[in-house]
Amino acid sequence: MIYMDHAATAPVRKEVLEAMEPYFTKYFGNPSTFYTVGREAKKAMEESREKVAELIGANPEEIIFTTGGTQSDNIAIKGIVLKNKNKGNHIITSQIEHPAVIETCKYLEKNGFEVTYLPVYEEGIIKIEDLKEAITDKTILITIMHVNNEIGTIQPIAEIGKIAKENKIKFHTDAVQSVGKIPVDVNELNVDLLSMSGHKIYGPKGIGALYIRKRTRLEPILHGGGQEKDLNPGTENVSGIVGLGKACEIAKEELEYNQKYLTKLRDMLIEGILSNIEESYLNGDLINKVPGTANFHFVGIEGEGLVLLLDGKGIAASTGSACSSKKLEASHVLKAIGLEDVDSHGSLRLTLGSENTEEEVTKVIQATEEAVKRLRSMSSIWNQRENKRKEDINNKCTSCSLE
Amino acid sequence: MIYMDHAATAPVRKEVLEAMEPYFTKYFGNPSTFYTVGREAKKAMEESREKVAELIGANPEEIIFTTGGTQSDNIAIKGIVLKNKNKGNHIITSQIEHPAVIETCKYLEKNGFEVTYLPVYEEGIIKIEDLKEAITDKTILITIMHVNNEIGTIQPIAEIGKIAKENKIKFHTDAVQSVGKIPVDVNELNVDLLSMSGHKIYGPKGIGALYIRKRTRLEPILHGGGQEKDLNPGTENVSGIVGLGKACEIAKEELEYNQKYLTKLRDMLIEGILSNIEESYLNGDLINKVPGTANFHFVGIEGEGLVLLLDGKGIAASTGSACSSKKLEASHVLKAIGLEDVDSHGSLRLTLGSENTEEEVTKVIQATEEAVKRLRSMSSIWNQRENKRKEDINNKCTSCSLE
Repeated sequence: MIYMDHAATAPVRKEVLEAMEPYFTKYFGNPSTFYTVGREAKKAMEESREKVAELIGANPEEIIFTTGGTQSDNIAIKGIVLKNKNKGNHIITSQIEHPAVIETCKYLEKNGFEVTYLPVYEEGIIKIEDLKEAITDKTILITIMHVNNEIGTIQPIAEIGKIAKENKIKFHTDAVQSVGKIPVDVNELNVDLLSMSGHKIYGPKGIGALYIRKRTRLEPILHGGGQEKDLNPGTENVSGIVGLGKACEIAKEELEYNQKYLTKLRDMLIEGILSNIEESYLNGDLINKVPGTANFHFVGIEGEGLVLLLDGKGIAASTGSACSSKKLEASHVLKAIGLEDVDSHGSLRLTLGSENTEEEVTKVIQATEEAVKRLRSMSSIWNQRENKRKEDINNKCTSCSLE
Repeated sequence: MIYMDHAATAPVRKEVLEAMEPYFTKYFGNPSTFYTVGREAKKAMEESREKVAELIGANPEEIIFTTGGTQSDNIAIKGIVLKNKNKGNHIITSQIEHPAVIETCKYLEKNGFEVTYLPVYEEGIIKIEDLKEAITDKTILITIMHVNNEIGTIQPIAEIGKIAKENKIKFHTDAVQSVGKIPVDVNELNVDLLSMSGHKIYGPKGIGALYIRKRTRLEPILHGGGQEKDLNPGTENVSGIVGLGKACEIAKEELEYNQKYLTKLRDMLIEGILSNIEESYLNGDLINKVPGTANFHFVGIEGEGLVLLLDGKGIAASTGSACSSKKLEASHVLKAIGLEDVDSHGSLRLTLGSENTEEEVTKVIQATEEAVKRLRSMSSIWNQRENKRKEDINNKCTSCSLE
């Protein structure tokens, strides 16, 4: 299999699984207990917290473990606005956030909060002027993602953070798609809260973390035994936490190399697709993009058919994001960068990982070319368009000869 | 190590870990995707759902996967009361619930709901008459645990469920400590919602499930990509789900045998402790108790010292529950069954698992006897008490001789 859907999830690295295994069967204690097997679990958990903190330039005590990116986003966003509801009721976000942020904001809108969804234009990036204009004296939270999960564009987080700080507004970023892929430093980025996930960086599913800057207070949304500073109660997922720590450690070691390697593979992929397939387009900005992510649209086809044909050739890719791919609506991200629904439905997301090779990229370009051709041969939209074009050429020739 | 804290957590069974492993590295796809590696993950998830459902007599479509018992409790309780807040604002629970239920109820009390905490008396079991009296026309939820995590007592769930049904009140039970240990059938128990956890039944930590009876509607408390019927959004923890399924399958197969085996071991333990250690008492009812759980208190000692001495002999046990053991307050459960704080602090919980042996039980009885003796020799409370007793005997003898 050629796996090119790393923005949806990644396989667990061998070293990560090896690090986790003793915590299932040997050091299996409940970290809240104080006998040996519990203390060993607790110790491993705290070592993991250090590794997570190190990857993003934070202090270990600023990290809480969560069950993943979605829970981190929920804890952060609801936690801040419920804690600060006496100060105001206005939230600023963008039109291209992950469902974990968008749906949380929509829920809050139904419960007395007001939300501004900043536009991102054709490039898929917000404008700082728009942000400045959106701020009111009721604004209590800005939540804008670092890297978009569908098109890979990078938002100007450090600049947004500076403005948030100047205006004394708490700033959260969903960094699920950036941590481990590009340098992330919570101080350079000026963020108060940052969400991350294990399974996007070769760690296990079901584990994530939330960075909470010192003295940032949140109202808990889950209630129970008080674990993780009262914010994520319940027995800690020790093996998952150990896996996340190991994944962060490896990500830090390999970051520089992978950034260069994946940028090379991605550019090869983009160049190959755009030059070999007529009427193919790249979605979102080419420059401010995370290494490894490329999102295209092909005129006249359905992305779903494309994914199925690629799957038949052993290639895993996606159309829209995995999270919304089951819904029939067009991607809200592609809509926000100005795509018509018909073009959104013809989109293909290819997201590379460090185990991908140049040979695989070459195969994917070729397979995509063949699949698009095949789908277009069956596509009434494409055929009408082709006929129209031929007609236009004929008409033009006729008019030429008339001159 | 002799591990006797299975109510806190259990090691992952070898067969469970083996079932999980392929889902970390081979079938690692995101179940929301529709290419092969994603579909394989989805298929495994649905097979697991069937196994979970089978253990508790439910339909697979009535099961959602959660991140553990605490999240299940939060989703169920808040979900029901927020959905039904127009019908009433009254909740009935017991005084000995797990913190996931108690703290959730306290939070709801701060937000306009009223909560009745039913007493449990010396036996640690609620009285049906108390329940009937507590019901008002504003009651929208009854949430009472199946088996208590500290003292192991079993509540009359089927009867409670019948009354709830007659009064058209939704009924939730936290069955984290009963599923896999005693027969649990959602229809026999008349429950609408039932919480369970993976790591208490030799599955992994970080995974649980919530049974939701058909046509029972919940308001989501977490928002995101819509997974698990919109109630637990975020990429599914596939390996954890597979592990939970396997753990449920094994639990079902071995339930009958383990029930008998653990009852025998537990009774041996109780008999050994009570007959060998003076001024030792069993906490909670002896009969209506889950196999494997025994909770004692020893006059004149601190449970913390006892746990540390036992740990020094390679025995893992607990005082209070793991979830509240870090707090210095006396256990709310032991308080509810009438223990004075001083006696609560002298408590020891021993919870057996299927890998424990008679030999281990014998060693634990002996080690506990020695440890209690040692602690009492240093205990001013015990010594005062002993001196007082000797004095009383002397006085009695003196008065005798005076007659």
